[in-house]
Amino acid sequence: MTQNLTLFTGIKELVTMAGAAAKDGRRVSDDDMGVIKNGAFLVEKGRLVWTGRESAVPRDLKKRIKKTLDLKAEAVVPGFVECHTHLVFAGDRAAEFEERNRGVTYQEIAARGGGILTTMKAVRAASKAQLLKLAQKRADVFVQQGVTTLEAKTGYALNEKDEIKTLQVHKLIEGPRIVSTFLGAHAIPPEFKTPDEYLKFLTSLLPKIAKQKLAERVDIFIEKGFFSVESAKPFLKLARELGFEVVIHADQLSLSGGTDLAVEIGAHSADHVIQLDETAIRRLAQSSTTAVALPAADLYMRCAYPPSRKLLDEGGRVALATDFNPGSSPTQSLSLVGLLARLEMKMTLPEVWTGLTYSAACALNLQKDVGSLEPGKCADFAVLSEDWRSLFYSIGHHPVVQTWREGRRLF
Amino acid sequence: MTQNLTLFTGIKELVTMAGAAAKDGRRVSDDDMGVIKNGAFLVEKGRLVWTGRESAVPRDLKKRIKKTLDLKAEAVVPGFVECHTHLVFAGDRAAEFEERNRGVTYQEIAARGGGILTTMKAVRAASKAQLLKLAQKRADVFVQQGVTTLEAKTGYALNEKDEIKTLQVHKLIEGPRIVSTFLGAHAIPPEFKTPDEYLKFLTSLLPKIAKQKLAERVDIFIEKGFFSVESAKPFLKLARELGFEVVIHADQLSLSGGTDLAVEIGAHSADHVIQLDETAIRRLAQSSTTAVALPAADLYMRCAYPPSRKLLDEGGRVALATDFNPGSSPTQSLSLVGLLARLEMKMTLPEVWTGLTYSAACALNLQKDVGSLEPGKCADFAVLSEDWRSLFYSIGHHPVVQTWREGRRLF
Repeated sequence: MTQNLTLFTGIKELVTMAGAAAKDGRRVSDDDMGVIKNGAFLVEKGRLVWTGRESAVPRDLKKRIKKTLDLKAEAVVPGFVECHTHLVFAGDRAAEFEERNRGVTYQEIAARGGGILTTMKAVRAASKAQLLKLAQKRADVFVQQGVTTLEAKTGYALNEKDEIKTLQVHKLIEGPRIVSTFLGAHAIPPEFKTPDEYLKFLTSLLPKIAKQKLAERVDIFIEKGFFSVESAKPFLKLARELGFEVVIHADQLSLSGGTDLAVEIGAHSADHVIQLDETAIRRLAQSSTTAVALPAADLYMRCAYPPSRKLLDEGGRVALATDFNPGSSPTQSLSLVGLLARLEMKMTLPEVWTGLTYSAACALNLQKDVGSLEPGKCADFAVLSEDWRSLFYSIGHHPVVQTWREGRRLF
Repeated sequence: MTQNLTLFTGIKELVTMAGAAAKDGRRVSDDDMGVIKNGAFLVEKGRLVWTGRESAVPRDLKKRIKKTLDLKAEAVVPGFVECHTHLVFAGDRAAEFEERNRGVTYQEIAARGGGILTTMKAVRAASKAQLLKLAQKRADVFVQQGVTTLEAKTGYALNEKDEIKTLQVHKLIEGPRIVSTFLGAHAIPPEFKTPDEYLKFLTSLLPKIAKQKLAERVDIFIEKGFFSVESAKPFLKLARELGFEVVIHADQLSLSGGTDLAVEIGAHSADHVIQLDETAIRRLAQSSTTAVALPAADLYMRCAYPPSRKLLDEGGRVALATDFNPGSSPTQSLSLVGLLARLEMKMTLPEVWTGLTYSAACALNLQKDVGSLEPGKCADFAVLSEDWRSLFYSIGHHPVVQTWREGRRLF
């Protein structure tokens, strides 16, 4: 008999989120946290083979234990899934934030080539090594918060060479599982006159990115003055034919139809989803598409928060993410995101936990592998030094003391 | 000649805040940060004896240098002054926060003995050692953020024995300079029928606290249903006669006259100051009283932010603090406070820095000793690993790598 199992013990509460997963992230209640008191789990080749009470390890598996690790944990929880970030960028926009606070308008800043163009210039000018160094540091900050799966979007280069460079950086980041998203359709670079001209160019890029396997997903910002539903349709259709999953920045500033399009084409996620009417809320809630709420961005933008409570009450699935980026959401704080979800969107604590684990996994179509601690899934977990119920209350307090991915310790 | 000076070098930017201090915290502009490039400073017995460019150490002082320390700092800034906290408490109110988010009202929670009474019971039940352990951990979190002076209020015991116990805990905290404030008049405990009855009891406590030298300051919560201006006046008058400084929780929920009283009696600070009319704003701005804005509490309470911009434009002095407490502001995050001050109150970056250093020192009447880095003042400082201009932008990002108080390293 091969002894190749690792037993993890010393866990006051093992929070499996199995109930949330069984309900597919919908209508989650307190019981769905799947808490096992005095829990333990067995890992084989990076995957969970058993979870349960420490006193109840099955006899046949016991014989196969090679190593036992006492985590001395108040709680072990699924590794967090951060499903919406713009991780790779250079430069910063703190000085522009100060200018805006002093009364300079977005329009004035944009007119002199600031805003997203500030970041575009910095990203184009940065070497791959420079971008990687910056991105790795940020990825490490996420890992220190228990993040084991991390989505990262391009969209600050807006030309072929440097969008490809950004995608290559995604592949070089160490630590968390990176989900790479091509968001060339983030804004219109100065080299192009109209969104449609630029989208035509981006369309020509898709096969190259597919061939080099540099991204798993294609994203697009549907908004007045940016990309329309009409032009997004053929672009996303091609993306899907090339094997990409698709996702949409939808209805952030106005109800422009992005959410409806996401539902119509079965996108895995519709992100932001702030300006929804009752019909759009119901459609989204009843679809397979996950709503991704980004409350830190809403705080920084001083705009409305998405109707997460209504989406959840209608049976929808709501994931939570930081939207980490240099301009509209320059924060990596999971404790802030979770607190805002509770305070401003009236999500319950189990809904917040689900939003950062199972539902976020759904947004990335990785729910079969991550997002809950169940046999067959990856052994991705975070060790807490405090009760899991204490999280997402005190902004800045996030007592993760260890992070493990596929049975290997990252932090 | 005695060689007893320590020279600190290796400082890309020494942020002295000397300009802000020279202007007494009023009408502070960019130039008032008092930045010295390639700076250095000399310390003797915990006090600064010289600050300037590293290349310009005066000859006579050079001879007296015993030790040179290279800080390898992007910046050195004055130690932060945290001028409003409720540091010493037991228990937590995260579960009540969840209940409120699910629709249970404050009134319902209060009626069953929750809210502040939850904390009162926990504080009364806790031993001095238990309270100290909890408070010390929190003080350490502040120190890790560069805080060298920390105000702490009582007000969760609301009886003689345990208020005294809390004051004794203040005296036992190690690390930062603690300013101890007696806030017996925080709420009305169940043992008393009316605010006035309770205030009579508190009045009888003041001489005992004075005699034991357990507090430097007396604070009172002036608000409808709590303590009135009329009853606060004789209480604060006695406090002052006994040698206490006085300070007021003023006009947080309604314009109840607390700010005007603070100005009238020359209180060092009026805290919260949200519900001010134009007259109260002008009076406060033109007085010697420092306005203490507590934006994290305003975020958690989902209420208005104080009119800091107007106060500053009228020539007022605005300090910033966390209001750290278990109920209405359960966060210790300086980066959150600073960001909210910019985003929600349109304070400029130099005003935020002043609010957390010099003006906060004024709120504690310690501006002669701390709040800026100038000869004669305490060598209280924080070492940053990044440009000081990058702070108070990304919530949760606060690159303090060392904290020193009176020339000794705390962190």
